[in-house]
Amino acid sequence: MSVPTHFLHDCQMRIQPWLEQFLAAQNGLAKPLSAAMRYAVLNGGKRIRPALAYAACVACGGHINDANSAAGAVELVHCYSLVHDDLPCMDDDDLRRGVPTCHKAFDEATALLAGDTLQALAFVALACSHLDDTIKTRQVQQLALASANMAVGQALDLAGEGKQLSLHELEAIHRHKTGALIRASVLMGASAAGCTDEQTLASLENFADKLGLAFQVHDDVLDVIGDTQKLGKHAGADAEHAKATYPALLGLQTAQQLAVQLHDDAISAIKHLGCRANALIWLADFLVARDH
Amino acid sequence: MSVPTHFLHDCQMRIQPWLEQFLAAQNGLAKPLSAAMRYAVLNGGKRIRPALAYAACVACGGHINDANSAAGAVELVHCYSLVHDDLPCMDDDDLRRGVPTCHKAFDEATALLAGDTLQALAFVALACSHLDDTIKTRQVQQLALASANMAVGQALDLAGEGKQLSLHELEAIHRHKTGALIRASVLMGASAAGCTDEQTLASLENFADKLGLAFQVHDDVLDVIGDTQKLGKHAGADAEHAKATYPALLGLQTAQQLAVQLHDDAISAIKHLGCRANALIWLADFLVARDH
Repeated sequence: MSVPTHFLHDCQMRIQPWLEQFLAAQNGLAKPLSAAMRYAVLNGGKRIRPALAYAACVACGGHINDANSAAGAVELVHCYSLVHDDLPCMDDDDLRRGVPTCHKAFDEATALLAGDTLQALAFVALACSHLDDTIKTRQVQQLALASANMAVGQALDLAGEGKQLSLHELEAIHRHKTGALIRASVLMGASAAGCTDEQTLASLENFADKLGLAFQVHDDVLDVIGDTQKLGKHAGADAEHAKATYPALLGLQTAQQLAVQLHDDAISAIKHLGCRANALIWLADFLVARDH
Repeated sequence: MSVPTHFLHDCQMRIQPWLEQFLAAQNGLAKPLSAAMRYAVLNGGKRIRPALAYAACVACGGHINDANSAAGAVELVHCYSLVHDDLPCMDDDDLRRGVPTCHKAFDEATALLAGDTLQALAFVALACSHLDDTIKTRQVQQLALASANMAVGQALDLAGEGKQLSLHELEAIHRHKTGALIRASVLMGASAAGCTDEQTLASLENFADKLGLAFQVHDDVLDVIGDTQKLGKHAGADAEHAKATYPALLGLQTAQQLAVQLHDDAISAIKHLGCRANALIWLADFLVARDH
């Protein structure tokens, strides 16, 4: 599998200044709230969801610039979700991307409000872009539904803690918790390109669903075999918290095989789009090969 | 001042089933999350913001039904903000509308996620309505900016706690914390009617800004002179927490006069709209006459 560091790097170079400028443009944000938001958003991050939005836009024949607002909005939602997930009443994590979590660097109230504000600003980003109102409306639908589903997934995850979950239940958690936003990234990118062809959208949705699960299975695998320094969070945390994971349910080797199978299924779903879909395929390769 | 209990009551009767049906339609919401959301949204509430959206729609010559999604969305955001504001890391309140706050009735994580989900669903409500995409896009802009500003206001409020604030600083807090959403209610209602006339929108914005402040000044006054049972929250809480309030800064009588003055200014701003604006005027009367 070739690793598309160049494409991902290009996306990172593209979205970083967009995010910086977007946050800087929200004047009237008082410190420490604005500082906490910058800390949560500009502090590294692989920008996988923005890259998926860009790649899907290109796969549908759009200009990559048209996906800026989709890429930015989905990353704002992702960053907000990390800030809230890390809060003491949720996962209670001290470390994120190798540095203190937002509520550790600031305080709980500021982290809560930074997350709340980032979610709202994601919709500002979509609704205020230069795209047609029809496209913007579709993107708001896609992101809003995904954002709601993501929170549902987090609730399912918390409810399942310490319980013996079936594979079906584990999959339901991840389809909501990480899958929904990955699907939205791809669909919003397609929308940015003006794609309304139902067959193409169905293929992309299938790709995104498979990739979202592959991503999560691989994430669970990395928690077993990865190292803390590369991950930027404590490896082995899932086992410590007795969390249901794919390796715990299936065994490590079967989980690794499942990730590869889902990756292959994802790629099969979009093969018929031809070379325009190369960036999506590269990203799928990367997500199941990454070591952090 | 006549009190428009009939108009407000009509709005309550209109938005309650809308909210019930909207929440019921979000299938896939697992308990206890869905229960917490219903608890936070369907549990009383005066529905002032929905009423403002309906009244503004009518004032602009629209059909009241066209404001359903605006009314519902703004109430969802309002309810989410109450849930988050009550959390232990924020105002740490046990009582809301006379019953235990959401995190007391459920738990902190569920309350946090219920708020997060409600914010996302507000944008689902707007983006999935039957209105034109141009109107929906405008409403998403209006609500998303207001929602972000509301969180900013909460941050300003927390930062100001225990400090001696100037009247100017106190006003800045309220313009964000409560004013932004009241302005959005009115503007989203106007948008629902398809209003794009700049003079009308400027008048409505002026009305909403004055009314938003009048509302807050009156709220501060009620915290001094109201009784706990009617308020559904502890009267005197502001003084206990040494919060900056209008009565604390201006004295009770001057604060009461300010509320009346702001109310009169609000009404002057929309007088030229004629009898179509009656419902807005009734609501302004009610908001500065209410005892809870």
